[in-house]
Amino acid sequence: MTRTLLQRLETAAAGTRFDRTEVLDAIRWNEAGLIPAIAQDATSGEVLMLAWMNAEALAETLSSGRVCYWSRSRGALWRKGEESGHEQHLEDLRLDCDADSLLLQVRQAGPACHTGRRSCFYTRVLGDGVEITGEVQVDPASVYGRD
Amino acid sequence: MTRTLLQRLETAAAGTRFDRTEVLDAIRWNEAGLIPAIAQDATSGEVLMLAWMNAEALAETLSSGRVCYWSRSRGALWRKGEESGHEQHLEDLRLDCDADSLLLQVRQAGPACHTGRRSCFYTRVLGDGVEITGEVQVDPASVYGRD
Repeated sequence: MTRTLLQRLETAAAGTRFDRTEVLDAIRWNEAGLIPAIAQDATSGEVLMLAWMNAEALAETLSSGRVCYWSRSRGALWRKGEESGHEQHLEDLRLDCDADSLLLQVRQAGPACHTGRRSCFYTRVLGDGVEITGEVQVDPASVYGRD
Repeated sequence: MTRTLLQRLETAAAGTRFDRTEVLDAIRWNEAGLIPAIAQDATSGEVLMLAWMNAEALAETLSSGRVCYWSRSRGALWRKGEESGHEQHLEDLRLDCDADSLLLQVRQAGPACHTGRRSCFYTRVLGDGVEITGEVQVDPASVYGRD
């Protein structure tokens, strides 16, 4: 029985190399042709945001080294920071075991979040309430709708 | 004009408290009633996996402190580690700025990945190829189909 590429990746030892095109062709895009992409600060390890990529956004990200997503609300490529200046520079990109999510290590210029906070995950759910954790670092008016 | 809850969260200072039920009611579940949840190692900061929750899985996770997902392949609640022993204990749970993804800080017992690796993100995409990064820590046969 022929083993699928994912099965071969599963059992491969660390350091084993595979063909990039073959691996990217194995990505399991969702019904809208998208994959969730987690952006993590390459230095601090802080998770900054979760956004979505289509095949074109992923290809551009890999070729340019600047992170490009697919904006579901705008229905267009979203070159992160193109207008706000809050760019993400790609340091590392990984695919997960079932080939349906991505993890990006990035160097983040300024805040990642459109609210002016470093991370989008500033709403902490506690046992008895919710607390805002992240301080606004830049005026959201300089980011909002442009990031 | 009445500001939505998300707009009030956006501009709130760090430390501001909100009602938990009101915030959880604002979650924007996808068309299948799910939200992506990132699990991050609370100690090392390593991103372990991305999985999905429905409202029931999230409620159980918050009440029990043990992470429960929704398995899309099995169409059932997935109490992480219930059979494999590779449980996730919840340390912190955050909602993102547009209320459509979750970030969990967890204490992970054993490997998070069904392949026996610590993280599911062991397939690194490089400029000219793909390299496996994570070493298998436990026999996948003891995890596979049970985690």
